Amino acid sequence: MARTPTGESVLARAVRVLDAFTADEPVLTVGEVARRSGLHVATASRLVIELAAHGLLERTADRRVRVGVRLWELGARASHSVSLRDAAMPFLEDVHAVVGHHVQLGVRDGEDVLFLERLSARDAVINFSRTAGRLALPTSSSGLVLLAHAPPELQERVLAAPLRPVTPAGFRTAAQLRTALAEVRRSHAAVLDGHQHPHATGVAVPVRDGAGAVVASLSVIVPNDGRGAGLVPLLLATALGISRTLGRPAGTVVGAPPRR
Amino acid sequence: MARTPTGESVLARAVRVLDAFTADEPVLTVGEVARRSGLHVATASRLVIELAAHGLLERTADRRVRVGVRLWELGARASHSVSLRDAAMPFLEDVHAVVGHHVQLGVRDGEDVLFLERLSARDAVINFSRTAGRLALPTSSSGLVLLAHAPPELQERVLAAPLRPVTPAGFRTAAQLRTALAEVRRSHAAVLDGHQHPHATGVAVPVRDGAGAVVASLSVIVPNDGRGAGLVPLLLATALGISRTLGRPAGTVVGAPPRR
Repeated sequence: MARTPTGESVLARAVRVLDAFTADEPVLTVGEVARRSGLHVATASRLVIELAAHGLLERTADRRVRVGVRLWELGARASHSVSLRDAAMPFLEDVHAVVGHHVQLGVRDGEDVLFLERLSARDAVINFSRTAGRLALPTSSSGLVLLAHAPPELQERVLAAPLRPVTPAGFRTAAQLRTALAEVRRSHAAVLDGHQHPHATGVAVPVRDGAGAVVASLSVIVPNDGRGAGLVPLLLATALGISRTLGRPAGTVVGAPPRR
Repeated sequence: MARTPTGESVLARAVRVLDAFTADEPVLTVGEVARRSGLHVATASRLVIELAAHGLLERTADRRVRVGVRLWELGARASHSVSLRDAAMPFLEDVHAVVGHHVQLGVRDGEDVLFLERLSARDAVINFSRTAGRLALPTSSSGLVLLAHAPPELQERVLAAPLRPVTPAGFRTAAQLRTALAEVRRSHAAVLDGHQHPHATGVAVPVRDGAGAVVASLSVIVPNDGRGAGLVPLLLATALGISRTLGRPAGTVVGAPPRR
């Protein structure tokens, strides 16, 4: 790979440029791109021009820059995660029709849960996740389910690191988290009251692939009024439906997502 | 930018590698990547290693390669198109609940319609679109709506090029297509019987942003039994609802997609 005098590859710097754009600030000037990516303005400017030539970035009318539809297409067209999301979508819609509020599908990426999909109602309880958003594994019901079924080395690494609860209800000690992980494995569900926001409860269950491996979490966010635990059977049954779909040959899933 | 002896940049070759993966063949060997991207195996192999180091590609258990969740995240997190899709999603769900079959949201990219979203029912009529899939503008109702509102130079370029109908019902002459485009602008809708498949009808309407510019097409695919035209009022009313949502400050749309 071609490298700069500092030894960093062109690709590494291009990823830093793309990483500068977020859901909260999706449109940036070249100067902002440079500052956020830690690159010289001249370098950032050259990379923006080339990324735009490939459609991975786009210029707006006011000469600022945003992520291009081509980058979304490259990421979505052949993604394993998008196949999973497409297979799960009819099931998510059914849960959303019954429960309202927020319904989410998450996967583990490193020590985060990354949300592949999030369906919301206008009058839903507050929730900080969003599609393509991330939360640290120990801070949310989705993350707890994925952590409980992650490789033991990763679990031990998370348990050994300082925990950073986002509300007073969050896990503060490794002992608390270890007990919660064991309970998730025993009960096949995580019900966390107020761990992301005092008024919200997260309820999550694992989604397994055709071979039985946990590949995702299915979750709902509802008001913190005691109703959360009652939704576990619905989520468990829905997760079984998604797993049955994942067990089928890929072509049948992609061609026409089955409904229950 | 660092360039090869042939003058092509590292970034250009990386895009060729990513472009080798499709929804039909999402998992490839390095040899297949090289053949599809037209690169030497050694070059393709080096690029695959570096793209995998950044999470843009992933290795499977059998040492093949697929698109990584990180590429999807970079494309989805800050994408203008994903914001549009998120804002439209509650409306798409409502249309899907009423009409069934397929409901789609498409945007124009060059001379294609690119589908940002596609909701399907298991018993839906046949349809060849899919999420992140493309169709040539003149061959589908979604594309016809977007072409009718595209810049005049682009319309003339498409009208001057050979038309490639995919069924006997498709447009074969520029005169037919020109008449159809005028009719779409007059009636605010495209109803195409059997242009993609003899048994399917596509019905599409334009979606405008807060400033009145056409930014997407909303469409349904239903059986080719004469019911299509009757769905135009529903689609037009739904498109107005999406436009109203797009006219609001971005924060309110992202935070909690409004429902009608």
